[in-house]
Amino acid sequence: MLNDVNDEYTGLRKKLYEIIEGPVVSGIIQLLILASAVAFVLETEFTEYKESIFDPIDWTFLAIFTVEYLLRIYTAPDRKAFIFSFFGIVDLLAILPALVLIPGFQILRVLRFLRIFRIFKATRFVLAVDRMIEALAEVKRELLALVILCSLFVYLAACGIYVFEKDVQPDKFGSIPDAMWWAIVSLTTIGYGDVYPMTPGGKIFTALVALVGVGLIAIPSGLLASVLTEARVEEKLQDEENGEEDEK
Amino acid sequence: MLNDVNDEYTGLRKKLYEIIEGPVVSGIIQLLILASAVAFVLETEFTEYKESIFDPIDWTFLAIFTVEYLLRIYTAPDRKAFIFSFFGIVDLLAILPALVLIPGFQILRVLRFLRIFRIFKATRFVLAVDRMIEALAEVKRELLALVILCSLFVYLAACGIYVFEKDVQPDKFGSIPDAMWWAIVSLTTIGYGDVYPMTPGGKIFTALVALVGVGLIAIPSGLLASVLTEARVEEKLQDEENGEEDEK
Amino acid sequence: MLNDVNDEYTGLRKKLYEIIEGPVVSGIIQLLILASAVAFVLETEFTEYKESIFDPIDWTFLAIFTVEYLLRIYTAPDRKAFIFSFFGIVDLLAILPALVLIPGFQILRVLRFLRIFRIFKATRFVLAVDRMIEALAEVKRELLALVILCSLFVYLAACGIYVFEKDVQPDKFGSIPDAMWWAIVSLTTIGYGDVYPMTPGGKIFTALVALVGVGLIAIPSGLLASVLTEARVEEKLQDEENGEEDEK
Amino acid sequence: MLNDVNDEYTGLRKKLYEIIEGPVVSGIIQLLILASAVAFVLETEFTEYKESIFDPIDWTFLAIFTVEYLLRIYTAPDRKAFIFSFFGIVDLLAILPALVLIPGFQILRVLRFLRIFRIFKATRFVLAVDRMIEALAEVKRELLALVILCSLFVYLAACGIYVFEKDVQPDKFGSIPDAMWWAIVSLTTIGYGDVYPMTPGGKIFTALVALVGVGLIAIPSGLLASVLTEARVEEKLQDEENGEEDEK
Repeated sequence: MLNDVNDEYTGLRKKLYEIIEGPVVSGIIQLLILASAVAFVLETEFTEYKESIFDPIDWTFLAIFTVEYLLRIYTAPDRKAFIFSFFGIVDLLAILPALVLIPGFQILRVLRFLRIFRIFKATRFVLAVDRMIEALAEVKRELLALVILCSLFVYLAACGIYVFEKDVQPDKFGSIPDAMWWAIVSLTTIGYGDVYPMTPGGKIFTALVALVGVGLIAIPSGLLASVLTEARVEEKLQDEENGEEDEK
Repeated sequence: MLNDVNDEYTGLRKKLYEIIEGPVVSGIIQLLILASAVAFVLETEFTEYKESIFDPIDWTFLAIFTVEYLLRIYTAPDRKAFIFSFFGIVDLLAILPALVLIPGFQILRVLRFLRIFRIFKATRFVLAVDRMIEALAEVKRELLALVILCSLFVYLAACGIYVFEKDVQPDKFGSIPDAMWWAIVSLTTIGYGDVYPMTPGGKIFTALVALVGVGLIAIPSGLLASVLTEARVEEKLQDEENGEEDEK
Repeated sequence: MLNDVNDEYTGLRKKLYEIIEGPVVSGIIQLLILASAVAFVLETEFTEYKESIFDPIDWTFLAIFTVEYLLRIYTAPDRKAFIFSFFGIVDLLAILPALVLIPGFQILRVLRFLRIFRIFKATRFVLAVDRMIEALAEVKRELLALVILCSLFVYLAACGIYVFEKDVQPDKFGSIPDAMWWAIVSLTTIGYGDVYPMTPGGKIFTALVALVGVGLIAIPSGLLASVLTEARVEEKLQDEENGEEDEK
Repeated sequence: MLNDVNDEYTGLRKKLYEIIEGPVVSGIIQLLILASAVAFVLETEFTEYKESIFDPIDWTFLAIFTVEYLLRIYTAPDRKAFIFSFFGIVDLLAILPALVLIPGFQILRVLRFLRIFRIFKATRFVLAVDRMIEALAEVKRELLALVILCSLFVYLAACGIYVFEKDVQPDKFGSIPDAMWWAIVSLTTIGYGDVYPMTPGGKIFTALVALVGVGLIAIPSGLLASVLTEARVEEKLQDEENGEEDEK
């Protein structure tokens, strides 16, 4: 397969590729990602050591990840495929904003934590993650329809509560976007308590909307859980059938 | 079939019907509905431009939707069936209140957003939505029984907390309807924090009611999720069986 | 069967029994129960009319339900079985406290609303309710184990948060029962916001407890939803098998 | 089997073992554990009787549990296996901290309540608990992957909200650990209301994060519920098959 892509894919490059994709380097990279994540947490807690300790650590991590990214491009059998793969883009997004020194864009440095998803490349999760992605793919139409239905529901709930509450609580329900904040916080059942209806009409409307909407928003995760189990059961049945055939 | 309903269903009317129900016009209409929804959101945010910008936009949308509705009636093969169909009524509700110029009824203009459900007529959702409606239909008896059970539970919870809290918090639990507001907010687990029991008896009652009621109210959405999966699995099995038969 | 119980079960008694258990009387009784429930709600809202309007209504309902209860006993084929049946006890509980004129016990009058469950005797729910009770019975061991597990979890969570928070918030976490109120409100995800941890230790403990406990408490309702679907699917398969056998 | 482990396992030791593991002693021990749990609750409520009533009770329970633990070691057929078994460690943890008289470690006495899990050794739960553990074991890979995914999500949510809110609410979102408290409270949908976003950006971010994360965190318990049902259904099918074979 590799020959098709690049005939000169031999020697050092191939060896480097095998090392960089091997379990040892992968493990170290994953540990470094975790370490950089922990360092970022500590940096926000102990701000007094930002310049003396955390900034140098940060730049070191950045240097390592940049080198790693360049090495991955250099060694990849199919460079284009790697650069535009999910992890290729994640790796780029993780280092690119950090390199930008324009102050306003410094905030994008949090993007570096996207790299944390690399942990799922650990061998023992591959099967479970694959199964989940497969389950997700199987119900993607239903999920999309449910997401749109939920969005419409949130929109209509926000329009409704706006009509009821805008005159009594103009600071909290003064516009539809404000009302949408209430709708999200209520229908996910978080209910911080910063905004809630006060008029009788608004309360009755909320009661109706909550009983339907709370159930609606809970369906997608129930669906995913259900599909995951089905996938597992089917796989098991397949294994058993294969087993029986083997016995014959 | 069309001949049965109306023998003169030919020429321009039929052509117009095919255009209006075709993918191009449907897509444009859906975009216009979305645009009018967005315009309404912006109108509430930027109230200073209401008369100069948003009111003309609003009237334009209304004019378009009214023309569309009339065209749909004119071109429908079976006019009565269209007028009393789900989308026929939605379309009417969406334009009727807007035409009413009596100030008090202006509030009904939010009904226009019911039209937003037209988005589900987009071809790629039809299957998923159909499957959901089918799943819903299969468990409608259980759902109805659960809805009634939940209503009774909310009622009894409200009566109970009213007995415990009415003397200590007469402003918040002074009547059963007030107590029902607490019951809904608590059993949906929203828990805004505007009303909660303060007496030891009320707290113990809440603890018992919450542990049972929260579970009860979560059953319907779990049921729907579960049924959706079953429907999908059965369909798949059917397909496989048909496939096997085809092979023979 | 009736002969075994009572040889003289004929004539008027039998006729009365058939009338009282028939759809017409059942429907009227259910409407009266709903009406009395609505009257009680209105009574708490419009307290000024309590003596002039609601008390006479109340006594009328009580009189009707007492006569109905006595008639049910008189006409029952097996009196003992009726008196100790679920609905027999509910009917008694519903009228007994109302008859007691001792002021302190007047509060027990809310028990009358237990009668509201009679609504489930309506023919079209019987099947759905039966199926639910069956599903409940099938997983009753698991449910009991889960309930005990949840209780232990709530207990341990309360003990833990008590240790962390008792010194900082002695008014809110001053004893284990107080801490249990927090545990219930948190693990059901209601989260009123009247009590929450403030110490770093208490917050970390809450984070761990919440992530596990919230999932734990959600399992029973998921289980019931899942079992309800299985029961329905099995029934359907049975019907199909029977159908196939009939074809042969 | 016992002979393999210890040839001298006869006489008094064996008899004592049978008594201590028998239903009578198990039942008494379980009652004593419950009683000690209740005593601890009452002790925190009625602190004035701590020294006069609860301390003696406490020491009595401790003495009984210590004797019981030593007896269990003495009588165990395989002592090493018992000491390092789940319940062996729990029993030790339950008495060890209580024996330590150093004031600072007195807090560890709450560990004694771990013993409360002994209640699951009651015969009638054994089957249900076994089934649950089995179900748990079957999906442990998926669960682990979901737990890690949820942790990453909480981490990224905390990083994100920190960026949006740190300048406006430095006391509540001043560091990532603070932001994590918000993330946990929000994504479990508890929503105490002590911390919530106030900036428009933070609210939009919360809306997106909540809609995805709330569903994500609900998947594991749905998965467990689903797997529990599958396990039960399979067992039933197995029983039916065996029944059919027996008939042959």
